[in-house]
Amino acid sequence: MPATTKTETITLQEQAQNTRRAARALARLSGEQRNGILLKAANLIEARCAEILAANQADCEAFTAAVGNGTASEVLLKRLKTSAAGVSEMAARVRDVARLDDPLEKVIATTELDDGLVLKKVPCPLGVMAVIFESRPDVVPQVGSLAIKTGNGLVLKGGMEARNTNRVLVGIWREALAAHDARLAACICLLEDRAEVMQVLQMEREIDLVVPRGSTDFVNFVFQHSRIPVLGHGSGICHIYVDRAADRNMAKEVVIDAKVQYPAACNSVEKVLVHQDVAARFLPEMGRALQSAGVEVRGCERTLELCPGLNVIPAGEEDWSTEYSDLKITVKVVASLQAAIEHIDRYGSRHTESILTEDPAAAETFLDEVDAASVFHNASTRFADGFRYGLGAEIGISNSKLHARGPVGMEGLLTYKYKLHGSGQIVSSYAEGKKTFKHKRI
Amino acid sequence: MPATTKTETITLQEQAQNTRRAARALARLSGEQRNGILLKAANLIEARCAEILAANQADCEAFTAAVGNGTASEVLLKRLKTSAAGVSEMAARVRDVARLDDPLEKVIATTELDDGLVLKKVPCPLGVMAVIFESRPDVVPQVGSLAIKTGNGLVLKGGMEARNTNRVLVGIWREALAAHDARLAACICLLEDRAEVMQVLQMEREIDLVVPRGSTDFVNFVFQHSRIPVLGHGSGICHIYVDRAADRNMAKEVVIDAKVQYPAACNSVEKVLVHQDVAARFLPEMGRALQSAGVEVRGCERTLELCPGLNVIPAGEEDWSTEYSDLKITVKVVASLQAAIEHIDRYGSRHTESILTEDPAAAETFLDEVDAASVFHNASTRFADGFRYGLGAEIGISNSKLHARGPVGMEGLLTYKYKLHGSGQIVSSYAEGKKTFKHKRI
Repeated sequence: MPATTKTETITLQEQAQNTRRAARALARLSGEQRNGILLKAANLIEARCAEILAANQADCEAFTAAVGNGTASEVLLKRLKTSAAGVSEMAARVRDVARLDDPLEKVIATTELDDGLVLKKVPCPLGVMAVIFESRPDVVPQVGSLAIKTGNGLVLKGGMEARNTNRVLVGIWREALAAHDARLAACICLLEDRAEVMQVLQMEREIDLVVPRGSTDFVNFVFQHSRIPVLGHGSGICHIYVDRAADRNMAKEVVIDAKVQYPAACNSVEKVLVHQDVAARFLPEMGRALQSAGVEVRGCERTLELCPGLNVIPAGEEDWSTEYSDLKITVKVVASLQAAIEHIDRYGSRHTESILTEDPAAAETFLDEVDAASVFHNASTRFADGFRYGLGAEIGISNSKLHARGPVGMEGLLTYKYKLHGSGQIVSSYAEGKKTFKHKRI
Repeated sequence: MPATTKTETITLQEQAQNTRRAARALARLSGEQRNGILLKAANLIEARCAEILAANQADCEAFTAAVGNGTASEVLLKRLKTSAAGVSEMAARVRDVARLDDPLEKVIATTELDDGLVLKKVPCPLGVMAVIFESRPDVVPQVGSLAIKTGNGLVLKGGMEARNTNRVLVGIWREALAAHDARLAACICLLEDRAEVMQVLQMEREIDLVVPRGSTDFVNFVFQHSRIPVLGHGSGICHIYVDRAADRNMAKEVVIDAKVQYPAACNSVEKVLVHQDVAARFLPEMGRALQSAGVEVRGCERTLELCPGLNVIPAGEEDWSTEYSDLKITVKVVASLQAAIEHIDRYGSRHTESILTEDPAAAETFLDEVDAASVFHNASTRFADGFRYGLGAEIGISNSKLHARGPVGMEGLLTYKYKLHGSGQIVSSYAEGKKTFKHKRI
């Protein structure tokens, strides 16, 4: 099985059409057959561990040679590098997906419209999705397993820096597919030319969904230039609201975790709103704890007044809509729960919002009224994640309210269709009143 | 209650924000309370029948005075005009929606992530939707009932020609809302200035979904200019494939119904694909039947050869991707079921596609492999409709595969959110291995 899939003689559009055709055949396999392909791939990942690691080693060396040493490149190198344990984890995750229920099997609804005229609403794959990603080698097994499980084709475009690793991993997928049927290998293909990304974004008849995984700038670029629906999130401006009835120790611990545990994550907290009744006692404590953890604290005027001993930077208007993705946080004192909800409605990115309170009624109001994919009560915003939610695998996190929302697993790759089984019925019989609909749910 | 809702002193954006705020309160009512508002409105529609008809009469007279008589204006006048029976039907449809199950009540999934850390996936309203429509007065009660049932706010922009009718009907909705709580009246507002449409399309923080109902050109304009997700369909290029194993009489009857019963509908058939094995016998019969019904027939070369006595116009490449919305049809002879599927994949608009055959295996392949919102076996394409599907009421038909697809009822106005109920959990406990997730489905 060739490691890359782009042959020189066909256009990108033809290649995507081949993927589309192969995916149609994949979707018609039984759930057991699709799981068989997943288990075959998991075995191959383990069997070829040495080959994966050698390719990854070559990528890491090429990266270091090109970029040199330094803090920034170390962070990137850490994302690029995998290990024997990482490869085992890849195989284990693919097996996790194989264990999930077959998403294509279950009929969503059946309605008898009339005698011999039965309507079924059934799940079906989207068709072909394009995933554009950087560095992390575990993206290939993860999205590959979700695509095959749901009967979708996959056009992958990885970063140049992970070129060798991606080739081996995509080659494994194609081998596992071909082991079932040679024509299925085309279900997954790998692009390596950066210029092809713009072409992909225009192929609205060939590709049904684009999933950009990368920097906020890159994701926003894709949102702006794609004619195809995009699953992703531009920014994560997550708030924690510390209510008047919050447990102060819990609040301090949760805020620190949400900011410090992984500041670059989209679900890390960027803004803390504190009820005025607890601000005087809570803010100096929280401010000290944040500063001890190396966090730069910005604040509204009232925050500055309440924390005279701390080096709080005055917040400007732009701070409320800025995602720092860094050890920085902005704090605001609010007059009420409703004021917190209004602030979040105005500045939030509808990603993840958390209330800390011992008052169940306040929690319920917040969870009901705040418009975000994930709304939390007494928990760190960092829990908003497909693995932590138990989705099996994550294709991405969506800030859109349409289609799949929040951390997205298999359901993001599915749509449905209406299948109507008739026996020659025509509409004019019903329009003229000769027949009437039964609309009986079965 | 004022008939229109736009007061002169606030901006469109402020008005939409008021609608958003009022809708938040609406969403927190119980299902019984929201149904109470629907029943109140249904009663008001009946009680104010004379007022609705007088307003509608004024609209019709103004329209005739402005446009004059003629075939085209008669069609439009027919769409604009309502009657006492039409008004009763409006009230009956609103009561139908009240009878549907509460869509906000049911928890979609519950997962215990760990002790005292429970994740619930719950349905919730999208927020505010904007519906831009022409003529038909029954749009106001229909989308109003769906919006209130699902806890959404509604910004309506009707056509100038139905101005008086729309004012009365929107006034009734606002009165029914205010009867429950005066602040709820703002849930529905009516715009009358055409220039405001462009503004609405840019208000991505205030409005969650745009539903354009009108001509293909208008819908495509909205798709191109909206920064907000759009629910609708640009074109309906629907095919009927007459298989080698089709019942010829049934096929003739279904094709005639699908083309003639309402040629301007998006679900009327535009192209007929005929298997080569039955073309010689079937095509002349079908061609004659279509021409007797006043349909202009275009065809591929083989069709022309097979129908020498009929006046078939040679089809050009552009015919395969043209929606006529008129008494015109294009016919092609295909070599196989797979050739039909490939043709539809290339030219179809993914709206509604039908196979006519007595061969269950061919039907299954077609229904599985054709990528369209509605796929039919032995039935007219004209069945693709929310009322015929038994959805209760229809907000529109979507050709998009993401979010709601095909004829869309209540589910198109809903999204979901993840509510996480914790007791102070932080992610670092799990990242450091002090705790592990349970992921127990409840």
